[in-house]
Amino acid sequence: MTSSQGESAQGQGALRERPVGLVGLGLIGGSLGLDLQAAGLEVRALVHRASTAERARERQLAQRIDTDPAVLQDCGLIVLALPLDRLLHPPEALLAALPAAAVVTDVGSVKAPVLERWRQLDHFVASHPMAGTAEAGVEAGLRGLFEGRPWVATPEPSTDPEALAAVQQVAEAVGAQWLTCGASAHDQAVALISHMPVLVSAALVEAAALGGAEAGAGALVRHLASSGFADTSRIGGGNPELGTLMARCNREAVLRALQHYRQQLDGLEALVQSEQWPELEQALSTTQALRPEFL
Amino acid sequence: MTSSQGESAQGQGALRERPVGLVGLGLIGGSLGLDLQAAGLEVRALVHRASTAERARERQLAQRIDTDPAVLQDCGLIVLALPLDRLLHPPEALLAALPAAAVVTDVGSVKAPVLERWRQLDHFVASHPMAGTAEAGVEAGLRGLFEGRPWVATPEPSTDPEALAAVQQVAEAVGAQWLTCGASAHDQAVALISHMPVLVSAALVEAAALGGAEAGAGALVRHLASSGFADTSRIGGGNPELGTLMARCNREAVLRALQHYRQQLDGLEALVQSEQWPELEQALSTTQALRPEFL
Repeated sequence: MTSSQGESAQGQGALRERPVGLVGLGLIGGSLGLDLQAAGLEVRALVHRASTAERARERQLAQRIDTDPAVLQDCGLIVLALPLDRLLHPPEALLAALPAAAVVTDVGSVKAPVLERWRQLDHFVASHPMAGTAEAGVEAGLRGLFEGRPWVATPEPSTDPEALAAVQQVAEAVGAQWLTCGASAHDQAVALISHMPVLVSAALVEAAALGGAEAGAGALVRHLASSGFADTSRIGGGNPELGTLMARCNREAVLRALQHYRQQLDGLEALVQSEQWPELEQALSTTQALRPEFL
Repeated sequence: MTSSQGESAQGQGALRERPVGLVGLGLIGGSLGLDLQAAGLEVRALVHRASTAERARERQLAQRIDTDPAVLQDCGLIVLALPLDRLLHPPEALLAALPAAAVVTDVGSVKAPVLERWRQLDHFVASHPMAGTAEAGVEAGLRGLFEGRPWVATPEPSTDPEALAAVQQVAEAVGAQWLTCGASAHDQAVALISHMPVLVSAALVEAAALGGAEAGAGALVRHLASSGFADTSRIGGGNPELGTLMARCNREAVLRALQHYRQQLDGLEALVQSEQWPELEQALSTTQALRPEFL
């Protein structure tokens, strides 16, 4: 992991010479549009539907918004703010509309398959701004979403260093904390801290429902569940499409993360089974000490 | 599960005739002391240490506070606000000091072992106010802790109905929502929504730490972990003594809850393994629909 900050002020000029293009104006694209305009940049955007374009214009998510890919033609840097599945299967019209000289980056939350699909593009940089809310769509974009959040790029030896620097400027223009690492390390990390936990959390909701029913205490478990259960189950009750997409696009890392998870849970269960209470307390003390490192 | 409210106004008089006694002035005892005094009741309290008594007096957690069990002698109702292990192994001096006519209740979060230890007492009612914060000790008590929270009693056929009604009055005097159910249903319910999730959550922290180290991404996982991970891991990073005590005192129900949990996680993992994406999305949709019932 490499992180750096504030070394790119000189490059800001280059970013300002030509408009930034956004493909998609959902939560990430829309928020970028608002923040980049506020930073004084010219922003153009391509969206899929006419109704989205209309609403996005009302919300002033970019200075020019169109459903015609030609809107991207003068852009010097383009952010593909598309859902992962569309990013991995981009429409031909989009590919044809990307100017050959433009720096292109994405915002996908899994990086190895994105690189596999896009690395042949001359000035492509795989990146992942790690910010979000539960919202999606043209109404979701908001100011300040990226402030202080990590924006991870996963450059390869073949990645154009000037393109990488340009994407860093975009990240820093919206207040994100820039860092770089390998695509595989990124994908394994997000599997451990985000994609696998969705399954861990979802299983909890099902277990409470079925276990409660079996004990004839279905209403009781619902009634007694408090903030602890709400927190632990939150991401398991999130968008099912998104959870599935992450598992699908990051399948191997998610399965590996589940193996790690299972080993740990097996260990704790064995301590309960064999009534090794001092050892269980020791294990929970380790967890208590470790967790703040992840906050 | 039976819940009732507001039918005990007439009984309030009886509760007011004699002081309420509290054994222990930690989070639960201290909060009860503050709220019951605010409700106009006379409160007396027994604590273990002289230094605790001194601080509790400064905080005015009760009108009379002492380390001498004789402080309980005129009390008509006594709440044993002790940690579960001390409740299951009460000191002789405490047992000797409980007035024979007094209604006695507890606040333990597991009910079957409490009943096993205490049911021979004439006017004992097993109960569990489900409120808490991360704090403990004489500084932790606060006003309004029980407002709107469930206060569950687990009466048996032999439980004195007048004693039960008196405990209900205490619960309602502090704004809690009174309900009754069987001890076994209670213990299974809290295993599912509280005790087992501690282990599920703790395993996640360990998995992220070890999985990250194995992938050479230890710093990265810590850096990228965001609010989703913080929520899912919160209760796993809580008090290790408490987590262990719950597992110990509710061992069978926790093991049964873990079995339910494992079945669900196995099911989700199998869908990822066999790339059954529509089925995974369907499973996560079920979870999404179920979770609000637990909030």
